[in-house]
Amino acid sequence: MEGLDLQELHSFAATLAIDAGSYLREQALARASRNPVNGQHYDLELEIKENSSDLLTKVDLHCEALISGAIQKRFPDHKIIGEESYSAGQDKRFLLTDDPTWIIDPLDGTVNFVHLFPTCCVSVGFCVNKKPVAGAIFAPLLNGLHATNASGSLYSAAEGLGSWSTPISFPFDPSVLTPPPTSSSASPPVPFHHAVPLPYLAPQPIPADAPKGCLFLAEWGKARSDAPSSNLTKKVNTLWNMAAEIGGRGGKGGMVHGMRSLGSAALDMVYVATGAVDIFWEGGCWEWDVCAGTIIVTEAGGRVVPSQPPAFLRDGDAIPDADLGSRLYLAIRPCASTEKETATEAQNRLIKEVWRRCENLDYVRSK
Amino acid sequence: MEGLDLQELHSFAATLAIDAGSYLREQALARASRNPVNGQHYDLELEIKENSSDLLTKVDLHCEALISGAIQKRFPDHKIIGEESYSAGQDKRFLLTDDPTWIIDPLDGTVNFVHLFPTCCVSVGFCVNKKPVAGAIFAPLLNGLHATNASGSLYSAAEGLGSWSTPISFPFDPSVLTPPPTSSSASPPVPFHHAVPLPYLAPQPIPADAPKGCLFLAEWGKARSDAPSSNLTKKVNTLWNMAAEIGGRGGKGGMVHGMRSLGSAALDMVYVATGAVDIFWEGGCWEWDVCAGTIIVTEAGGRVVPSQPPAFLRDGDAIPDADLGSRLYLAIRPCASTEKETATEAQNRLIKEVWRRCENLDYVRSK
Repeated sequence: MEGLDLQELHSFAATLAIDAGSYLREQALARASRNPVNGQHYDLELEIKENSSDLLTKVDLHCEALISGAIQKRFPDHKIIGEESYSAGQDKRFLLTDDPTWIIDPLDGTVNFVHLFPTCCVSVGFCVNKKPVAGAIFAPLLNGLHATNASGSLYSAAEGLGSWSTPISFPFDPSVLTPPPTSSSASPPVPFHHAVPLPYLAPQPIPADAPKGCLFLAEWGKARSDAPSSNLTKKVNTLWNMAAEIGGRGGKGGMVHGMRSLGSAALDMVYVATGAVDIFWEGGCWEWDVCAGTIIVTEAGGRVVPSQPPAFLRDGDAIPDADLGSRLYLAIRPCASTEKETATEAQNRLIKEVWRRCENLDYVRSK
Repeated sequence: MEGLDLQELHSFAATLAIDAGSYLREQALARASRNPVNGQHYDLELEIKENSSDLLTKVDLHCEALISGAIQKRFPDHKIIGEESYSAGQDKRFLLTDDPTWIIDPLDGTVNFVHLFPTCCVSVGFCVNKKPVAGAIFAPLLNGLHATNASGSLYSAAEGLGSWSTPISFPFDPSVLTPPPTSSSASPPVPFHHAVPLPYLAPQPIPADAPKGCLFLAEWGKARSDAPSSNLTKKVNTLWNMAAEIGGRGGKGGMVHGMRSLGSAALDMVYVATGAVDIFWEGGCWEWDVCAGTIIVTEAGGRVVPSQPPAFLRDGDAIPDADLGSRLYLAIRPCASTEKETATEAQNRLIKEVWRRCENLDYVRSK
């Protein structure tokens, strides 16, 4: 971490996410206009990657170039792993080293963006020693698609500096991303104007009978084979277990409060960090989908662990953090300690209750 | 419709939804505050209705009283059907008559609100001759939970006047809900300042191989029995069909672009009206969840029909509108005609493709 200024990296990640998000917003507005733009009908130039649910647009590519260019200018020594340039290559190994590395998803939720469904975002994470230490996620379309009175939401964090939610208005005023004057010496430092700390709510205990009472997020994903051993089949069975009445589905019924799917793993992680979502269970997404989200969740007091029990784990072992390159993630919200258990013990209890109900997924990196 | 001014009803519905939404937002902020409010810890006073996923809070009740009171003052002759007062009664019949009637859900997505998950809203619909003719849906938390720089999204419609998306800033300035001065005689009339028409995008054709390429919304709902004939089992099978590869699941694989669940039928309808979502398939919700959404979808050019083929329907019959009291709804987005088919024909084609893949649900009104 020598020579790295986490406050500077935090602001820079936020700037990148908002700049790229503003571009996404402009592109969405250009498409949404009922009239051709400059006499031309707007064409997304959609490309299909693996199958018809795996999309790439020229917007993804331009957005990644915009972010990469800004990083190369400011931090020429830093490495970059971006979804689109990575996906274009043949090598599917996990490329992260101990070097300072930006891991970016220029457009998380491309299917949503193509449809103008609002849960899409830019995700900018920064790792050192293979660990996320700063990150920003910006969602430009959540509040509707308006040229005037428009607004977006920034979620960001850096190691030791906390996790934050900041409202952003358009046209964007970059001075928002500086610390506001502190009203009293007692106020904790706030990184940006109008930033509020995550989780929104003071951390709550995890219910004694969790996952009952929990809000559960999961994504259907892009693997769609209906073979009995397919990842889709295993996901459906796992979601079914989580939803079913207590005791149902062979004793695996979890009776969660609700099941949600947004189509953006980065935003899924954000909602765990806010405290709204108790459990985000995911297999199949990649490091750029969860890198920024991981530091946002952990700085808020949440956990990001493997989505299924690691083979090497024995009773009494500490539950390890998720391997960023594993494509298998389980995020658990910040929580309070009680007289009976510490926050970590409560989270461990919930992790094991999820593991007991989930079917082990089988995503590999190579094709 | 004699004596009814749809423009006035439209603005009034919007005012009700924003006023109630502002109250929800204040309550959420009071909870989110990391400090006790007025020295008191905030208590939602949660009540469980049917099972642990069916919640009622004092906020739902106060919010309904607030809306009902305003209606009784302005339109003392109008009838009111509200979720909470209806649910408290024993009679589960569909009470709508031909009289002017407001059908309101003071808080759609109560589970979301309890968790501070952002997809919750106020839904205010108005019917005459048993048909929704005006409505407004306001979502106060979509863009994060901020006391400053806060914003929300209003979606509204009235028969013959179009369907609209309007950005709302806090503190709320009621003069936004008046028609802005028209810049030229050529501009179409806009009901509110900064309102933009729905769908956002000029209507697109429905893909030839739909539901492939479609964005599909559905809710897991509150019925959670895992019996083979239960509504949960039928829903899971239907979602699985929609997601699976083309030809999978016994030829029912729909290979949709994506599956989403937000936990609010009213907002689900909004996203169909914006054009973002192609299909919203739902069983189990009630008239207050879909009344405002129905006019917002249909004024945008979409359709709201039964979620499964009516027993009386024969080949060549026109597909009827959904019965508002049926608890079974299928909403299809606005679309363009092509050389091959009219918009209605394309929507009918998609409706039948959904029906072919769905299992018939079995919700009744009585307990």
